[in-house]
Amino acid sequence: MTMVRPIPSLPQLHVDLDALLENFRWFERQAPNSAISCALKANAYGLGIKKVAPALQAAGCDIFFVAHICEGEELREILGKNPIIYVLHGLLTHEAETLLNHDLRPVLNTHQQMDVWRKQGKGQPAALHIDTGINRLGIAFDELETINSSDLNLCLIMSHLACAAEPAHPLNAQQLQRFTKVIQHFPGIAASFCNSAGTLLGSEYQFDLARIGIGLFGTLALEAELGTPTMTPVARLLAPIVQLKTLHKGQQVGYGATFEADRTMQVAVLAYGYADGLPRTIGPDTKGWFKGASVPLLGRVSMDLIVVDLSQLDQQPQVGEHIEFMGHDLEPFADSCGAEPYEILTSISPRVQRIYQGEAA
Amino acid sequence: MTMVRPIPSLPQLHVDLDALLENFRWFERQAPNSAISCALKANAYGLGIKKVAPALQAAGCDIFFVAHICEGEELREILGKNPIIYVLHGLLTHEAETLLNHDLRPVLNTHQQMDVWRKQGKGQPAALHIDTGINRLGIAFDELETINSSDLNLCLIMSHLACAAEPAHPLNAQQLQRFTKVIQHFPGIAASFCNSAGTLLGSEYQFDLARIGIGLFGTLALEAELGTPTMTPVARLLAPIVQLKTLHKGQQVGYGATFEADRTMQVAVLAYGYADGLPRTIGPDTKGWFKGASVPLLGRVSMDLIVVDLSQLDQQPQVGEHIEFMGHDLEPFADSCGAEPYEILTSISPRVQRIYQGEAA
Repeated sequence: MTMVRPIPSLPQLHVDLDALLENFRWFERQAPNSAISCALKANAYGLGIKKVAPALQAAGCDIFFVAHICEGEELREILGKNPIIYVLHGLLTHEAETLLNHDLRPVLNTHQQMDVWRKQGKGQPAALHIDTGINRLGIAFDELETINSSDLNLCLIMSHLACAAEPAHPLNAQQLQRFTKVIQHFPGIAASFCNSAGTLLGSEYQFDLARIGIGLFGTLALEAELGTPTMTPVARLLAPIVQLKTLHKGQQVGYGATFEADRTMQVAVLAYGYADGLPRTIGPDTKGWFKGASVPLLGRVSMDLIVVDLSQLDQQPQVGEHIEFMGHDLEPFADSCGAEPYEILTSISPRVQRIYQGEAA
Repeated sequence: MTMVRPIPSLPQLHVDLDALLENFRWFERQAPNSAISCALKANAYGLGIKKVAPALQAAGCDIFFVAHICEGEELREILGKNPIIYVLHGLLTHEAETLLNHDLRPVLNTHQQMDVWRKQGKGQPAALHIDTGINRLGIAFDELETINSSDLNLCLIMSHLACAAEPAHPLNAQQLQRFTKVIQHFPGIAASFCNSAGTLLGSEYQFDLARIGIGLFGTLALEAELGTPTMTPVARLLAPIVQLKTLHKGQQVGYGATFEADRTMQVAVLAYGYADGLPRTIGPDTKGWFKGASVPLLGRVSMDLIVVDLSQLDQQPQVGEHIEFMGHDLEPFADSCGAEPYEILTSISPRVQRIYQGEAA
């Protein structure tokens, strides 16, 4: 276990790698007939690919997805030569060589990308992405008959769900129906359809390979009324108190003086602002936590600071102690900011010190 | 001029260092009797301190502010021994040594911080922050008489405006009145009161030292009806097109299928998502630009992708070409996302490739 010395005045992100692996194994149980791959784009959803990827590799994951070629290069360097790494954005002209040099497999999203890889890919494997309804990346389903896959070493056929977080959305069944036709068109090639939430839609959605992203980090970001499966929280943000102060009735807080105290209040100034990833869109229900008690936020979020209300605490914290965010509270926290857990995690800035915990750390 | 090779499939942030210096000189003219210091916290507002700071130093800036001690350490390494560097968050216990080792001056925000620096600061200079109304960092104005500054080498008395972007807000005059009393309490010590927008409130607000942040980067983020002074845009974000596609009537776009085409449309998929800093809070007026024509955004922002509508373009772009964001459009762009220019800039993630332009690059 590597010890990192926490910097007392910086916000810290505590990443529990044991919890990460519990979630990975949760998906192994959820989709027992599928291989589980991990989508670690955007620096492993902000949690830090240098630690997250090796932990997953050690737990048995040997297929990874990233968005960009440069993310693939970094991941190859981290993981060594064995794992399969797919690049979701595929390739532009002149990028085949970089893919080949790092043994990265492009996800081919267009006829043009197929042509480039046919000419420059030296017969190396690639995935093919058919767009069954999200209308983002991938060759449109209605062009299925026009696809020329000759002279391509296709090892995976994939598509991506648009509405997996809304199980009742009719587009799910429609995409499944289309994808079933797609794979009939490519017999004998492995198929991948599910993201994290997709694995809950039923075994008929699961196919050969699931691509798990947000679920690894403790949430499925499902529609609120669906509740949350028993995922394990992975990330806790600890914001240090840099100043305590007493606010008197009538005093205002922060830029624009948008909060005004209606009584004497004990408050704390935290070194945690939007440049660290705290959304400026906090709402009346956004809160942090101190020893199990909630701590509301006051006024506007500054770049490097936020003021919180300590009135509800029995035990007053000291300067240098931390107010906690996210953790078990990730989904309500995101919701209170009008945000999704995804962006809460990916927005945690490089200034926040990552501290890894657990056996795998 | 250092040449950086752009990565074609990554979003790029083009930072015009000449424009940055024009803005710096704009403030020198705006506050001719004040020294102009630069606040380069949060990686120079996301633009990259390694290039931004030396350019400003070469233009004559010799006083800098950062939020965190570790930001000060990095800046000291970048700029060498001469410039004065203040750390706005001051210090917690056990941090005096780090400040001393890197010749950083703490901004003392509490009686406790004053005590620590008195004991451990070895007589080195420090600033004192009096809170005149923002109720964030700083010793409260009503404690002015209780401040014991003996055995401290105070070189700067500062306070921070809460409502400088709203010139008519009564708190501005109130803070000024209080700050005037504050500096009478510390005769002979330099005074600093203004942030970027504060310099426009009048010469009586300017004192000895202005602390310029957002204004360096081409905006004052004033209330919309005030218009924008003649600042020069510094940052343009170029998002590469990774796929072109035709959308047919009834087809939906993105997660949640929230956009539905009411006609045949030409669209582009851009490698630019919320993990790059594109806010998920885009609204109906959020747009990018291609050769001077606007390009609306369709559906939800994905982590690594967004779909844009090319219908309004006379000339269709190609895969690998870029759609431009920010630039002259920074303030309306931020506004359309319900955001401030500050957070738009600080949210640009490390994945976005920074490319520097201008004489100073």
